[in-house]
Amino acid sequence: MAEDNGHSNQRPAILILGAGRVCRPAAEFLASAGSRSSHVLKKWQVSKFEEIEEFKVIVGSLYLKDAEETIEGIPNATAIQLDAMDNASLAKYIPEVQVVLSLLPPSFHTTVANACIEHKKHLVTASYVDDSMLKLDSKAKDAGVTILGEMGLDPGIDHMMAMKMIDQAHVRRGKIKAFNSYCCGLPSPAAANNPLAYKFSWNPAGAIRSGRNSATYKHSGEIIQVDGDGLYDSAVRYRLPDLPAFALEYLPNRNSLVYGDLYGISNEASTIFRATLRYEGFSEIMSTLAKIGLFDTEVHIMLNGDGKRPTFGAFLCELLKCPDTSNSQSQATLMGDAEMVKRIILLGHCKEASMALKTVKTIKFLGLHENKEIPGKCSSAFDVTCFLMEERLAYSSNEQDMVLLHHEIQVEYPDDDDRKPTEIHRATLLEFGRMENGRNVTSMALTVGIPAGIGALLLFQKKIHRTGVIRPLQPEVYEPALDILESYGLKVVETVEIS
Amino acid sequence: MAEDNGHSNQRPAILILGAGRVCRPAAEFLASAGSRSSHVLKKWQVSKFEEIEEFKVIVGSLYLKDAEETIEGIPNATAIQLDAMDNASLAKYIPEVQVVLSLLPPSFHTTVANACIEHKKHLVTASYVDDSMLKLDSKAKDAGVTILGEMGLDPGIDHMMAMKMIDQAHVRRGKIKAFNSYCCGLPSPAAANNPLAYKFSWNPAGAIRSGRNSATYKHSGEIIQVDGDGLYDSAVRYRLPDLPAFALEYLPNRNSLVYGDLYGISNEASTIFRATLRYEGFSEIMSTLAKIGLFDTEVHIMLNGDGKRPTFGAFLCELLKCPDTSNSQSQATLMGDAEMVKRIILLGHCKEASMALKTVKTIKFLGLHENKEIPGKCSSAFDVTCFLMEERLAYSSNEQDMVLLHHEIQVEYPDDDDRKPTEIHRATLLEFGRMENGRNVTSMALTVGIPAGIGALLLFQKKIHRTGVIRPLQPEVYEPALDILESYGLKVVETVEIS
Repeated sequence: MAEDNGHSNQRPAILILGAGRVCRPAAEFLASAGSRSSHVLKKWQVSKFEEIEEFKVIVGSLYLKDAEETIEGIPNATAIQLDAMDNASLAKYIPEVQVVLSLLPPSFHTTVANACIEHKKHLVTASYVDDSMLKLDSKAKDAGVTILGEMGLDPGIDHMMAMKMIDQAHVRRGKIKAFNSYCCGLPSPAAANNPLAYKFSWNPAGAIRSGRNSATYKHSGEIIQVDGDGLYDSAVRYRLPDLPAFALEYLPNRNSLVYGDLYGISNEASTIFRATLRYEGFSEIMSTLAKIGLFDTEVHIMLNGDGKRPTFGAFLCELLKCPDTSNSQSQATLMGDAEMVKRIILLGHCKEASMALKTVKTIKFLGLHENKEIPGKCSSAFDVTCFLMEERLAYSSNEQDMVLLHHEIQVEYPDDDDRKPTEIHRATLLEFGRMENGRNVTSMALTVGIPAGIGALLLFQKKIHRTGVIRPLQPEVYEPALDILESYGLKVVETVEIS
Repeated sequence: MAEDNGHSNQRPAILILGAGRVCRPAAEFLASAGSRSSHVLKKWQVSKFEEIEEFKVIVGSLYLKDAEETIEGIPNATAIQLDAMDNASLAKYIPEVQVVLSLLPPSFHTTVANACIEHKKHLVTASYVDDSMLKLDSKAKDAGVTILGEMGLDPGIDHMMAMKMIDQAHVRRGKIKAFNSYCCGLPSPAAANNPLAYKFSWNPAGAIRSGRNSATYKHSGEIIQVDGDGLYDSAVRYRLPDLPAFALEYLPNRNSLVYGDLYGISNEASTIFRATLRYEGFSEIMSTLAKIGLFDTEVHIMLNGDGKRPTFGAFLCELLKCPDTSNSQSQATLMGDAEMVKRIILLGHCKEASMALKTVKTIKFLGLHENKEIPGKCSSAFDVTCFLMEERLAYSSNEQDMVLLHHEIQVEYPDDDDRKPTEIHRATLLEFGRMENGRNVTSMALTVGIPAGIGALLLFQKKIHRTGVIRPLQPEVYEPALDILESYGLKVVETVEIS
């Protein structure tokens, strides 16, 4: 166990590193949990825990101003300047606190984790536990330190919901025959007001690149591989049985098989499938945009060099191989929908006119046909598309994002009573961005920040006894964490269907 | 014109009759508009109107308590007891006010209208202008009184949005080739958490009966008739081009042709279509429930008389003609999904197993299979279904309803410039229930109550010069009304697509 801070006269504290958008909900949650006058966790404290010892929250960022802005209006929180890459800076603050919560980019975590182990303090992150982190496992164990990773939404709440269902089924001697999991961050249906029904809350490059990831999963005992190039074409229409109003589709999400191992169901489950959700139609349009070449990352000859920049329209004409390129500057701008549809079909990017038309609507919504100069910073088609997507597919200040996480497991009871039916267990988390005290808090920030904060609270309360590098897969983590999430308004709806 | 109230020493006033759920938003809007300290309409007042003369709001209801509850917390509003069927009661209050807004059921309107004409006061309602109201037209004109009907959502905002688009197209010498209109009150996607993706905010009988209305519309010059029996089967999958995340379907809504006459486009438009929106799948399930006999209104032999009541399960068995009826009390309760699907297909109510399964899920969600006694007040299958739908498809306190109104018109410019393309004009209103001062205000109450309040305000301000029985079809009504709606946060989004 990490040593008590008995030698210090200071009040106990939790240190949050990083002042990004996820930090504020985490800081607000922890500041409230650590304050005697807080009412937020009252219900939960009374029923499950003794009173929480008071503690303060310290938010550290490379720029003091960012940390100060993050804690604005939060009582019981202080802002400090801290360079997480500087060991001296870490050594100054970490010994003063009980738990560290790192919301920094993953590349910082090893440095922070080493400092935490050195000073015998627990660490929480919302990032994937990678190899460099796993290597610290025995060192952390030796120091009696817990490094709790993957304590966000995905990874995070997805693990907790899954393990609760799986453990419950196993207690009842059931076998998990199928595990299907769907997760997404999307605009709320009302905010999905464009042909792609998608928006970006930050630079779209990463999200677009992830559309080219290959995927592996197990379906009815068979291992299925999906090529990166074929990912969009593998999208399947999907309706949530309990929420049929959302027009959704799913795409396989990277390697699902590792989750079979993580959850201990590789041997019993003949289907293990994790997917990303999008609104219906997204993938088909993205696939067509890809075939047109709009996601090509190599430097394009038209965009190379310092000469006169082409217009978006002229560049589009080039990609669509319009016949008369001499007049191409204004050609795409003037091109009617029908003409553009014809070119897309002629080039073999699309078979059906209806899909080509949706692509054309998207192209026009993005402004890819416009008679405006392409900025000098764009040197590839990918750059051009990202530039316009960032500009045209951004959230307005009054629009909500949405987080949807849905697990469905099929449980069989094979050993005794043959009249026992198959059960389908479902668990769903659906959250929308909220307006809180005049601030727009995204559901993504909430569903990543709150579990991360809960992880820090549980470690502060010495409720987690396992040391080393861990994920929220054990009841000692997920049971109290899901309870607190619910008492904080993030409710997982569970249903069981017997067929 | 109605005479000024100069003979009275009292402050000017608007009288609202009825204290139902629509009343509160109307009273809040008007109380705010009539108060010097109000900020709500400030933006709108400054830009469009001179300052509004102060007035108070009086809410009258048969039960004083209801009126008092409605105005609770609203400054500048008073509650009175008033029997709208009693001429003496009307004669006591109507002379004291400038404008009357009747939010009573339609059957009250003629009595109220006669009293208003007698006392030379303007009247607003959110109900359809029916024949009995139309008969008062010349009497109202003679008295210089305006009776503004259909000043709610549908009818109401739908007229305003349509006439604005149509008038604008006509000014530009365009012809309306097609008019398509879709309107609905639905649960928000997150609240549509049942197999029907539908909820009722009051007794479902009316809504279920409307699913048997016959419909008439014009499509590409052809008059199409849809039988009441075939209405559900005529549902068509639908995606709003600018809001593709909602999984919708539409059903033709009664007689669309009358709107061609109302809007003056009968001769030019070859398509005139008004539809109701539901979430996808609703109609197919409702159609199957209807075929099973669950909407049959005649007294059923099992439910007739005062003897022992059957259970829901036994009654369902009877409707599904289960073979062994001797043991039917518990038979449906124990019946698996697959067995129930088989019976539904066997009886020819459904062709596809997937649809039968959706129906079974709905039956089970409603509890139609349960081993519970059917209440004595249910004497028909329709009663039984309504009873369970009211119980199981009700909104929870934290769930939002949604109003969606969408018009799409196709405009052609046939007379001169032959390069002028066809234009598609779209106008969409999308609203969700709001939590205001701790009260849940439905979007339906808002979108009916606010325009009704706006009608009363415009009449109070003498902005409407037409007398007699009118609808909000003229610019003098719809222009300021749509402006005020927007400044009050009910924004119509308009787009134009050139193809």
